[in-house]
Amino acid sequence: MRTHYCGQVSSPIIGQEVTLCGWAHRRRDHGGVIFVDLRDREGLAQVVCDPDRPLMFKTAESVRSEFCLRISGKVRARPEGTVNAHIASGEVEILCHEMEILNPSVTPPFQIDEENLSENIRLLHRVLDLRRPQMQQNMQLRYRTARAFRRFLDDAGFIDIETPMLTKSTPEGARDYLVPSRVHPGQFFALPQSPQLFKQLLMIAGFDRYYQITKCFRDEDLRADRQPEFTQVDIETSFMNEGEIIALMEELIRVVFREAIGADLPNPFPRLPYGEAMDRYGSDKPDLRVTLELADLTDALKDVSFKVFASVANSDGGRIAALRIPGGASLTRGEIDAYTQFVGIYGAKGLAYIKVNDATQLNESGLQSPIVKNLHALALQTVVERTGAQSGDLIFFGADKRKVVNDALGALRVKIGHEKGFLNGHSWEPVWVVDFPMFDYDEEEKRWTACHHPFTSPKDEHLPLLETDPGSCLAKAYDLALNGSELGGGSVRIHSAAVQEQVFKALGIGDEEAALKFGFLLDALRYGAPPHGGLAFGLDRIVTLLAGADSIRDVIAFPKTQRAQCLLTDAPSSVDEKQLRELHIRLRQKVDTQVEVGKG
Amino acid sequence: MRTHYCGQVSSPIIGQEVTLCGWAHRRRDHGGVIFVDLRDREGLAQVVCDPDRPLMFKTAESVRSEFCLRISGKVRARPEGTVNAHIASGEVEILCHEMEILNPSVTPPFQIDEENLSENIRLLHRVLDLRRPQMQQNMQLRYRTARAFRRFLDDAGFIDIETPMLTKSTPEGARDYLVPSRVHPGQFFALPQSPQLFKQLLMIAGFDRYYQITKCFRDEDLRADRQPEFTQVDIETSFMNEGEIIALMEELIRVVFREAIGADLPNPFPRLPYGEAMDRYGSDKPDLRVTLELADLTDALKDVSFKVFASVANSDGGRIAALRIPGGASLTRGEIDAYTQFVGIYGAKGLAYIKVNDATQLNESGLQSPIVKNLHALALQTVVERTGAQSGDLIFFGADKRKVVNDALGALRVKIGHEKGFLNGHSWEPVWVVDFPMFDYDEEEKRWTACHHPFTSPKDEHLPLLETDPGSCLAKAYDLALNGSELGGGSVRIHSAAVQEQVFKALGIGDEEAALKFGFLLDALRYGAPPHGGLAFGLDRIVTLLAGADSIRDVIAFPKTQRAQCLLTDAPSSVDEKQLRELHIRLRQKVDTQVEVGKG
Repeated sequence: MRTHYCGQVSSPIIGQEVTLCGWAHRRRDHGGVIFVDLRDREGLAQVVCDPDRPLMFKTAESVRSEFCLRISGKVRARPEGTVNAHIASGEVEILCHEMEILNPSVTPPFQIDEENLSENIRLLHRVLDLRRPQMQQNMQLRYRTARAFRRFLDDAGFIDIETPMLTKSTPEGARDYLVPSRVHPGQFFALPQSPQLFKQLLMIAGFDRYYQITKCFRDEDLRADRQPEFTQVDIETSFMNEGEIIALMEELIRVVFREAIGADLPNPFPRLPYGEAMDRYGSDKPDLRVTLELADLTDALKDVSFKVFASVANSDGGRIAALRIPGGASLTRGEIDAYTQFVGIYGAKGLAYIKVNDATQLNESGLQSPIVKNLHALALQTVVERTGAQSGDLIFFGADKRKVVNDALGALRVKIGHEKGFLNGHSWEPVWVVDFPMFDYDEEEKRWTACHHPFTSPKDEHLPLLETDPGSCLAKAYDLALNGSELGGGSVRIHSAAVQEQVFKALGIGDEEAALKFGFLLDALRYGAPPHGGLAFGLDRIVTLLAGADSIRDVIAFPKTQRAQCLLTDAPSSVDEKQLRELHIRLRQKVDTQVEVGKG
Repeated sequence: MRTHYCGQVSSPIIGQEVTLCGWAHRRRDHGGVIFVDLRDREGLAQVVCDPDRPLMFKTAESVRSEFCLRISGKVRARPEGTVNAHIASGEVEILCHEMEILNPSVTPPFQIDEENLSENIRLLHRVLDLRRPQMQQNMQLRYRTARAFRRFLDDAGFIDIETPMLTKSTPEGARDYLVPSRVHPGQFFALPQSPQLFKQLLMIAGFDRYYQITKCFRDEDLRADRQPEFTQVDIETSFMNEGEIIALMEELIRVVFREAIGADLPNPFPRLPYGEAMDRYGSDKPDLRVTLELADLTDALKDVSFKVFASVANSDGGRIAALRIPGGASLTRGEIDAYTQFVGIYGAKGLAYIKVNDATQLNESGLQSPIVKNLHALALQTVVERTGAQSGDLIFFGADKRKVVNDALGALRVKIGHEKGFLNGHSWEPVWVVDFPMFDYDEEEKRWTACHHPFTSPKDEHLPLLETDPGSCLAKAYDLALNGSELGGGSVRIHSAAVQEQVFKALGIGDEEAALKFGFLLDALRYGAPPHGGLAFGLDRIVTLLAGADSIRDVIAFPKTQRAQCLLTDAPSSVDEKQLRELHIRLRQKVDTQVEVGKG
């Protein structure tokens, strides 16, 4: 039906007859001539409709925004002074000979090039929203990104194998989406949170190198950049160790960034032990573009008379850290108040600080703060030395449970870094975080939980710690962060049934429970399971970064809202009683429902 | 950890040191030497363990089936007379220097090269079953096939765009799998039966050419070659007409077959109108390798005295057809009884036949059958002429409702064709079936139903028939069959809101129901929807054909049984009461459940 895409009409084909299909992006009447900007997925082309072809001109007169058109005409150079350098077809226009209205349009609720639309309006009219050039580009970028992943993995001998969507519910980690079975009354499938166990089974089955770009599901309360269903680039390999997997995967990411947006990432990526990442950046996905760093002071403040510090410094699991802001003495009271409020989000009860008037005077005149008088000279000296404070700086302090301090100062570091320009100037700062602990201690449940997941292998030399000191046991786990976002993570897996049983035991998963939930894995591990490991990348997150988009919803064609709804199709929705009966389920009482609605 | 795959070790690298990882496929002791056939995904390599390296030899002695090993050694030519021409590495062996047991194996429940295992045993031990070379090849073939689809579609400008898995339930067609919403009590998502509406929305959004290889779900009672979740190559394009879409799609299939298995499919594929397909083959996915054809006799038997024929011939919707079996007069009574039983599966109440002793004698001696005396001369002459019967042939008759006759004789045609060798000798016989009717009449519900789906466009010239004579209205729909299997099907879609409303009306879907279920589509169609159409291929089915497998379960890594269960992971399974409470559902009473279990 056409000879070219609109975006392909350019100078080299001046003089040619072309036929285009697309949408009327704008229509202007100017000096008795009608100009239609015709839009398709590749761009815009300017169509000129002269009144000397009355039939065509009459059609052009009836054209409104978003009419679907087919036009034929001759490509010619635009008159001097009307060239548009911003678009590919900006040097030419098409003198229209014929115009056919393939489908008219009612007036759209918004202009396709309108900006600053509310997100609800965009999601409700998603089909029109997707016509916006930015969304067209985002979806094409997503496609190119996935294709770059595939090409690299294909070339590296990885085989794409599909794993099931209707799987077994294993309530570990996040909440499952459940699917009632009709054939087996009272039983349920679960949608996969990841293909983790299946990809391990594929390794045990000897497929050697596997990948899959697949949907995963988590029924969690949604944060800004989460979706109930999300897409994972899932990868697993046999017979490679931690270092080899990391090296191959970072090469993959370099190739993807180069192919998708022409960006050059460093080679190699730096590797940062988890402990160091937390100490220096308060985060296991540090934004290394930001040049600010935390300094640890816990050991130096045990015997100060400032009670808040002393009690934290002497408590189990407490941390005192400082964040030096170069030149920060000039921050206004209002700015400091705002930062104090900001760290409150992360549970910090306050934000102590010292203004460094003169770094050489370790007293209340050189260091301006109500807390200075309660810190002895050695403490003050340590603060200045470890932070590297200079005259004119400001030092923020966090003193609380380790997690609160890390979360609060880690976030403050990034916020101030970007707001005040403490940046190293690099566009992309990838970093591997390695040497994660095997276990986190859950204070509420008084038990160890898996830091990655229960199938992650301990470091060989830490195997004995599984029984004696789980908290010190490190894992062969690795996460890749970029500019403060987690791109993906993975680990070498346990390939020995005996070690897997030990880890289950450390997690308080008894033999019976293990057999019930993971019996098929334990069974498979007994038949010569190969050493294996892998990783999963979050495709939505990666494309969001590549696109420079504000939200992952901008790189998903039909996303859910933060209340897990599709505004376009109105899903979820109620279903027929007959459907529920067939599935052997019923709704809980109305009263229940209403209470829940009220809470929602 | 290795230098080569086992299957890559061959003559050109004789003399080289190699390191291999894999599984002990077989271990033989022969003349004081141990031979281990080491297996990985690329094939087998013979490892020779001489006792002159005692440490290694001791390890080799402890090796049992399915141990996971790493070996190093030197590649050398096999001694004359021991070459194995069946495998890539059959001319060489590796003289083992070092052997490491990466993981031992308990004794497997079956040998990996054992054949004729029951399917339940295979599915229960799927991980080991997948180690079988045939399954390894099937999964690699599936991967190559999907990749060939992607490459062609990438090159043709199609963009892979993901559509949601958690969608709206629209109880048309098959039964939905439902997913209860936690956030919205009493409401449900449905898993997609196909991305049909979303891909149409993507066309309306201007993406022009879309594809996706994606999971679809149907909660139906499973036939031999169905799965609850299956994989579709889903394709849609704008601005192409029926003929252009068909031409592009058959080129796609030719390329896929060439790349996947090196098969050459004809160019072009034949196109067969639906009506003709049913008349001549009794099927809308005819196996054109079979040379037998049906002959229609309905009009010629209206006034015969054989009541069964006359009443069918004069009834609404009845059909009488004949299937000539060349040389079939020699069929035994037992064979004919078996065929009679076979057509019973399709609802045929019997299987009348005539033995053609002498095709020139149109009487009870030339044509041997109890029914001959009740057929007048002209009728007999028509039977012989239309079937082309020769002396020594046999003619089967079907007389019943059109559907019963087509199903019964259509299946009998294929069965006899393959059993008795009435085949044209071609390996692959693709055929487009086109010109489908828009509607089927549902006798029970006394209403028209969509033959493809409600979004299929009528032929332009048949638009007026939507109101006056829906039964005669043909659709811009097309199915691709190959060797009697349906590879895929599609249609040009309705792109006018007005026509879509007319079709809903013809289907008895009122305005309110249409707005509730498909309001978002009707809405989108009003904003300059482009002409568009597409198709979906069944990937599981195509790979099954390419692999020459007996069942689609042999080309799916982790399939469900025909009772929709995963025997490996034991899904579906019961879940915690807490999970149900969070989803605002409860199970129906125990008694209900038990009754249903008894029925299942």
